[in-house]
Amino acid sequence: MTSSHAAATPTPVLETATRARAAAAILAPLPRSAKDSALRAIADALEARTAEIVTANAEDIAKARAAGTSETVIDRLTLTPERVRAIASDVRDVVALPDPVGEVVRGSTLPNGIDLRQIRVPLGVVGIIYEARPNVTVDAAALCLKSGNAVLLRGSSSAYASNTALVAVLRDAVAGAGLPADAVQLVPGESRDSVRELMRARGLVDVLIPRGGASLIKTVVEESIVPVIETGTGNCHVYVDAQADLDTAVEILVNSKAQRPSVCNAAETLLVHRDIADAFLPRALDALAEAGVTVHGDEQVLKAAEGGKVTAVPATDEDWAAEYLSYDIAAGVVDSLDDAVAHIRRWTSGHTEAIVTTSQAAARRFTQLVDSTTVAVNASTRFTDGGQFGFGAEIGISTQKLHARGPMGLPELTSTKYIVTGDGHVR
Amino acid sequence: MTSSHAAATPTPVLETATRARAAAAILAPLPRSAKDSALRAIADALEARTAEIVTANAEDIAKARAAGTSETVIDRLTLTPERVRAIASDVRDVVALPDPVGEVVRGSTLPNGIDLRQIRVPLGVVGIIYEARPNVTVDAAALCLKSGNAVLLRGSSSAYASNTALVAVLRDAVAGAGLPADAVQLVPGESRDSVRELMRARGLVDVLIPRGGASLIKTVVEESIVPVIETGTGNCHVYVDAQADLDTAVEILVNSKAQRPSVCNAAETLLVHRDIADAFLPRALDALAEAGVTVHGDEQVLKAAEGGKVTAVPATDEDWAAEYLSYDIAAGVVDSLDDAVAHIRRWTSGHTEAIVTTSQAAARRFTQLVDSTTVAVNASTRFTDGGQFGFGAEIGISTQKLHARGPMGLPELTSTKYIVTGDGHVR
Repeated sequence: MTSSHAAATPTPVLETATRARAAAAILAPLPRSAKDSALRAIADALEARTAEIVTANAEDIAKARAAGTSETVIDRLTLTPERVRAIASDVRDVVALPDPVGEVVRGSTLPNGIDLRQIRVPLGVVGIIYEARPNVTVDAAALCLKSGNAVLLRGSSSAYASNTALVAVLRDAVAGAGLPADAVQLVPGESRDSVRELMRARGLVDVLIPRGGASLIKTVVEESIVPVIETGTGNCHVYVDAQADLDTAVEILVNSKAQRPSVCNAAETLLVHRDIADAFLPRALDALAEAGVTVHGDEQVLKAAEGGKVTAVPATDEDWAAEYLSYDIAAGVVDSLDDAVAHIRRWTSGHTEAIVTTSQAAARRFTQLVDSTTVAVNASTRFTDGGQFGFGAEIGISTQKLHARGPMGLPELTSTKYIVTGDGHVR
Repeated sequence: MTSSHAAATPTPVLETATRARAAAAILAPLPRSAKDSALRAIADALEARTAEIVTANAEDIAKARAAGTSETVIDRLTLTPERVRAIASDVRDVVALPDPVGEVVRGSTLPNGIDLRQIRVPLGVVGIIYEARPNVTVDAAALCLKSGNAVLLRGSSSAYASNTALVAVLRDAVAGAGLPADAVQLVPGESRDSVRELMRARGLVDVLIPRGGASLIKTVVEESIVPVIETGTGNCHVYVDAQADLDTAVEILVNSKAQRPSVCNAAETLLVHRDIADAFLPRALDALAEAGVTVHGDEQVLKAAEGGKVTAVPATDEDWAAEYLSYDIAAGVVDSLDDAVAHIRRWTSGHTEAIVTTSQAAARRFTQLVDSTTVAVNASTRFTDGGQFGFGAEIGISTQKLHARGPMGLPELTSTKYIVTGDGHVR
């Protein structure tokens, strides 16, 4: 299948992908010990070469400052010696995780005596397209390496110097451990063209995982002929049912919205059953006000907000659709649980929806009818996370239905193959 | 996510997909008993209305004859009362299969006391694009229904009358069993435009599964923005190792190639280790000649064929790449197992490769290095099949790495979602 691509004009991106493919073939059959040695070497090298990394990072930061970048973004971009140590420590955590490759997913002896085994194998070449955070460079490389995949890293151009320094350290460590350095590569070029080339490299790249803003993800999903795993857009809902403990409901709402509003599992919409609205809304709006949240409400919510402390403005369709990632929340009153489900089905990005209820029947119906990666019952939307789920690591949160859905750990970076063993069996 | 699509001009194809989406929401939470009732009703209705189906089929056959269609294709298109009974019987087999929906894939109690469950859920709306065989219409509908999915059927225009009659029977039976008739729909229109519209219906259609020729699959894979599961192209290899039982090798070779050459798991290339070539090739070529197979050989194979009974012609790169689906095989001699693997990696479609060997080390290395859906050791390539694997049914054979790889049964027609249950848990 690669032959047609090998014949194409070898651009720097395609050459990189071709080298990744060759490295992937070497990585695939490696035992865990070989991969763990390389990961340990990476952690050690990150600590040994921290100065080099921080110096390169300073270059990116200076550029970002000159371009008037916001302090929030600059903070995400910044690498300090402490942060580099934390990144190295995360790599050591990946060493401790089990190797998914070789796991027998199912197996049986068929009626004719053939032994059938379905085993996990690496995907091959994984392309990650991501935004400013340079820690993703190391995280993604470590997870791909552990799962036997070669990785092509396409970070933000604003982190190019940092990523270049980090990848140099990673490659040296990998090669020093006797593995192919091309298992970890930065995609050359800072322009959008390199993303476009990656998206056309079907047969060389096995999957692209875009991590970042909705527009990046939309572009990749619509334009790529390489298979894509869509990640991370989260228009998450909290629904407070007719029967709900008010304290619990307020606590889950505020935690879901305000504990860390900039992430994809933060809540963006509150739906309240009309039977509990009068009792719940005043307390909820006060608590949101205290947390510094602006409410985009429907008529009933605006009425409840009158004279209270909360800042409330009218909600439009844009609000029901919005992934604010800020101290804002859309809020509305619904006539029934089924109406809440219908609202969610219409507007959700399919990430996480929570119900707060004391009714077993309501919890059961909500979890059956809501079709999102995660349905939380009497728990914050903020738990949808590979670390929280006990996966030990996370390459992203898939919001699509094919291949992987929800937080993706190491097994989600594998495919499977069947081994059919006979002794001369024919049909 | 569907909102943007709902706003687009509602063409007949999009209207069909929108109705399928509504039906899918009703199907998803249904228990097995409701789905099995509908399947039993389908089987009964197929038998009760056989005459109607066969009459419609006669129309398609008359058209195909008038167009000078080959008898092989007409045979595939033909429905007799016996064949309709067999199709009904296949539907009853699906009734007997376990329901994948609701299966707990993993589950644990997290350290904080939250109960985490990952459960299988339907994909939603599944689009199947396929060629002449009208039995696929019923098979695909039955498998989708059993797995809680709505199905959009886009068969060949040459089977339009047959498919229209079959789908009418299916819909009546489904509605009679109290399920939404729109769970099973024929995509309107006989032109290629309807395929194009399906491929753009992201947000309405969850997955497209093209079944058929390589060019159809390539078009869908490259042009669809709906996620695709690539199926069925099989350039399968048989490799005869330096140490191999010659009788076993001949039997597996002939079975893999000639037992049913028109299917995707038939062998298309023979590779022979040079150390066994002199002993094996004369016997292999004789056996292939007896089975009526033409050999497209490299220099050494052509030399071995001289003066023998087999028809042998020189192999070109087209032959190494070919999925003949006929009584033809490409054949070459390799210097080592690793060279066989390199040849396979270069030319395979990634479906099934077999090794014939008495060496445990060779078997182990071959299964580790070959990256295809199925690796057979001392067994025919013909075993790669959902029925043979004991899955009870098959919607196709995926040759891609994401989501499903190899024969796809009912679990492969599902996604998963996580249920997070707490009692007021926050972060």
